[in-house]
Amino acid sequence: MITLKEAQDICWSEEYRPNTEILPLNEVLNRILAEDVYSDVNMPPFHKAAVDGFACRKSDLQHDLLVLGEVAAGSLAETKLQPKSCFRIMTGAPVPDGCDVVIMLEHTQVLPNGRIRFMKEKSSQNICFLGEDVLVSDLLLSAGTLLRSQDIGVLASAGKSTVSVYQSIRVGIIATGNELVEPHCLPNPSQIRNSNGPMIEALAQSLGAKAINLGIAPDQEAPLETIIERSLRENHLTILSGGVSVGDYDLVPIVLKKLQVKTHFHSVAVQPGKPSFFGKRGSSLVFGLPGNPVSSFVQFNLLVKNLIRKLAGQNNLSNETIRIPLSYDYQRRNAAREKWEPAQLNENGEIKALNYHGSGHLHALSFAKVLFQVPAGVASLRKGELVQALIL
Amino acid sequence: MITLKEAQDICWSEEYRPNTEILPLNEVLNRILAEDVYSDVNMPPFHKAAVDGFACRKSDLQHDLLVLGEVAAGSLAETKLQPKSCFRIMTGAPVPDGCDVVIMLEHTQVLPNGRIRFMKEKSSQNICFLGEDVLVSDLLLSAGTLLRSQDIGVLASAGKSTVSVYQSIRVGIIATGNELVEPHCLPNPSQIRNSNGPMIEALAQSLGAKAINLGIAPDQEAPLETIIERSLRENHLTILSGGVSVGDYDLVPIVLKKLQVKTHFHSVAVQPGKPSFFGKRGSSLVFGLPGNPVSSFVQFNLLVKNLIRKLAGQNNLSNETIRIPLSYDYQRRNAAREKWEPAQLNENGEIKALNYHGSGHLHALSFAKVLFQVPAGVASLRKGELVQALIL
Repeated sequence: MITLKEAQDICWSEEYRPNTEILPLNEVLNRILAEDVYSDVNMPPFHKAAVDGFACRKSDLQHDLLVLGEVAAGSLAETKLQPKSCFRIMTGAPVPDGCDVVIMLEHTQVLPNGRIRFMKEKSSQNICFLGEDVLVSDLLLSAGTLLRSQDIGVLASAGKSTVSVYQSIRVGIIATGNELVEPHCLPNPSQIRNSNGPMIEALAQSLGAKAINLGIAPDQEAPLETIIERSLRENHLTILSGGVSVGDYDLVPIVLKKLQVKTHFHSVAVQPGKPSFFGKRGSSLVFGLPGNPVSSFVQFNLLVKNLIRKLAGQNNLSNETIRIPLSYDYQRRNAAREKWEPAQLNENGEIKALNYHGSGHLHALSFAKVLFQVPAGVASLRKGELVQALIL
Repeated sequence: MITLKEAQDICWSEEYRPNTEILPLNEVLNRILAEDVYSDVNMPPFHKAAVDGFACRKSDLQHDLLVLGEVAAGSLAETKLQPKSCFRIMTGAPVPDGCDVVIMLEHTQVLPNGRIRFMKEKSSQNICFLGEDVLVSDLLLSAGTLLRSQDIGVLASAGKSTVSVYQSIRVGIIATGNELVEPHCLPNPSQIRNSNGPMIEALAQSLGAKAINLGIAPDQEAPLETIIERSLRENHLTILSGGVSVGDYDLVPIVLKKLQVKTHFHSVAVQPGKPSFFGKRGSSLVFGLPGNPVSSFVQFNLLVKNLIRKLAGQNNLSNETIRIPLSYDYQRRNAAREKWEPAQLNENGEIKALNYHGSGHLHALSFAKVLFQVPAGVASLRKGELVQALIL
C-alpha cells in the first residue's frame, strides 16, 4: 500500500505526445496547445491612451492649452505637438509623439477661447506604454497549455486564427460485475444498474478525451480477458471499475496479469477507494477503480484526472487544491487513512456538511461542490480550520 | 451607477425556457436538464453487503458458524439462514434474509471442521440498507439542473438512457472599434487585433451556448445599427464589447436607444469594468462589455456568466465564490469602488500575486487562477486574511 502522494507521483509522471491537428481558433477551447506561440506584435503596439481626455506635455500643465486636433482609436495624430498645446484623445488611441501625459476629460475645463485648462494639482500618466505587457517575439503560450477562454483571446491578439493542438486521446471504459445491468434495463432483485460506466465516460469527456463506453463485463475470466485485450489495443488508457480488490470474485488483477499488464500499484492508503490499480502494457495504460460509485468518483478526481491530462499532452498542471475554511466541527472514527470527504459550500464560500451515507451513496455527489482532505492521523477538525479542497 | 450586487440581482432575475430536445445519456454532460427525474428503484435495491466476509445473526457471533453457501454480487442465497450458521458473502451482494451483520473476512478464522469463528469483540454492521440512499419515486434531479459527471451516473442508476435537455441558446458577439482588425490581419501602427470577440465567443462556448462571432463593427452609427439589429433578431443574447462608455465615439448606447433597447443599467460600481450596459428589447437581451480585455473578462465572469446560465434554463445557481486566504499583503491606492483582482494560487492553495499591469493586460489572465474581491472602502488586506474568490 502506498500513499496518495506516492500514487500521484507515479501516475502523473506518465508522458505521451499525441498526434497534432490544426483547427480554427473557435474550435480549440479546452484543447491542449501543441506549439509554442510567440507574439508578432508589441502589446500595446503604441503608447496608448488609457482614458478619454487630452494628451500633452506634463511640463505644460500649468498653461492653457491649444487643441491641435483629435486622435480617435484607430487613427494617428495629423500634426506635431507644439509647446503649450494638446490633442483631444480617446481611450485606446495612440498618444502622439512628444506627449507624456493624458489628462482626464473630467479634470479639464474648456475656456471661452477654446483652450483647455487642467483643473487639478496633478495627474496620473494615463498612458499604457508600447510593449509594457508583451514585446515582439515574447513567448505567449507554450506547447502543452490547456487552452482556456482567456488564452483564446491571447492567441487572437497574436494573429493565430488557426492553432495546432493535440488530438484527443482515447479512453476505454469497462464496468465489471455480475450484478450490473445497463441503464435501459430494469434490474432484477439482485441486480443494480451500471452507473459507473456512464459517469466515468462523462468524467473522461469533461477532460476532452474521446471516451468509449465498452459496457459491462461479467465476473468471468474469458469475457473479461477478451474485452480488456480489445481495449488495450484500441485505447491509450483503459479504465475498469469494480472487481479490482482481492475478493474471490475480483478477477481483474488476475486477468490483467495474464494479459501481461505490469502492476505499478494496487492499493492506495486513501479513503474511499483503497483498492485502486494502476498498470501498463507497452504504451497502453490501465486504471482499475473501485466498484462503489463514490470511491470511483473520488479516485478519478484524485488520480485519473491529471493522468488523462498528462497523456493528452498537458504539461502545465499545477496545484488544484484550494485552502478553504470548514463551517462546522468535523469528526471521524477511524483516522488511520487519509480521507477525502464530499461536501457543499455555504453562502459564505465555506465548506458545509453534506448528507452522505458512504461510498455507495452516489446521489449525494449531485449536491457536492468540493472534496476536502482529512489527513491521515487526523480524527477531528474544528469549525474555521482551513482544509485542502478540490473544487468539483 | 449601481453596485455589483444590484447589477447581479437585475441580470440573474432573467428567466427563459428554451425548447427541449431528447439526447442519449452520453451526450448530455454540461447540458441543462429539462425534466424532473424520479427514481424507479430503491438504492440500494436490497440490504447490501458493504464488505467481503460472512453474513449471519449478531446474536450468533459467539458461536462457531456453519457455512450454508456463498452469495456473490448479482446472485441470491439459495437456502434459508439457520441458527448458528452463516453465508460467505461478497461486497455488493444481497444480504440473505435473517442476517443482521456482515463480519469481515479479515476478522474470521476457518476451523478444521470448516466452521467459521469470529475473532473480534464486536463488529460494525457492514450492511447498506435497502433504500437508505434513495427510495422509489424520490426526486433525483429537477428540471433546470446543470448536468455534471456525477449526475450522469445518477441518471444511469435511474434507468435514464435518454434525457430531455434544453436546447442551447444563441449568443451573438460583436466587437466595436475603428482600431480593431481581425486576428488573421497584421495591424497597422494605430490598430490592434480583435481579441475580445474570440475570447467572449470561447467564454460563451464554455457555458454550452451556441456562440456566433459577428466580427467587428466600426465606430459609425449605420453599420453598428445594422449588425446589432441583425443580432437582436437572431440571438437570445447579444454581447458587445467596447464603445459602451460615454466618450465622443462611444456610439453603442446611442444606437441601442435608436433600436428601442430599454436600458436596465449602464454603469456598475466595480473595477475593472465600470461602463457595463445591460438592456432588453422584447425577449432579446443585450450586454455591453468594456473594450479593455481584462475588464471585459472580469465583467463576463461577474455578470454575464450566470445571466447565460439563467437564459439557458439553469435554476440551480448557487454561490460560486469561495473563501480563500491571501498569501501576501495587498494594497491599492483608490479604494472607492469594489475591485476584483486576477491572481494565481500558490502550492498551498492560497492566493498569490500576479504580474498584472492593468485592464489592458490580457496576457496576465493566462496565468490567473482566481479573481478575488476587494470590497469598496477597503484599501489594504493582510496576509492570511480570507477573501471571496471566483475560481477561473
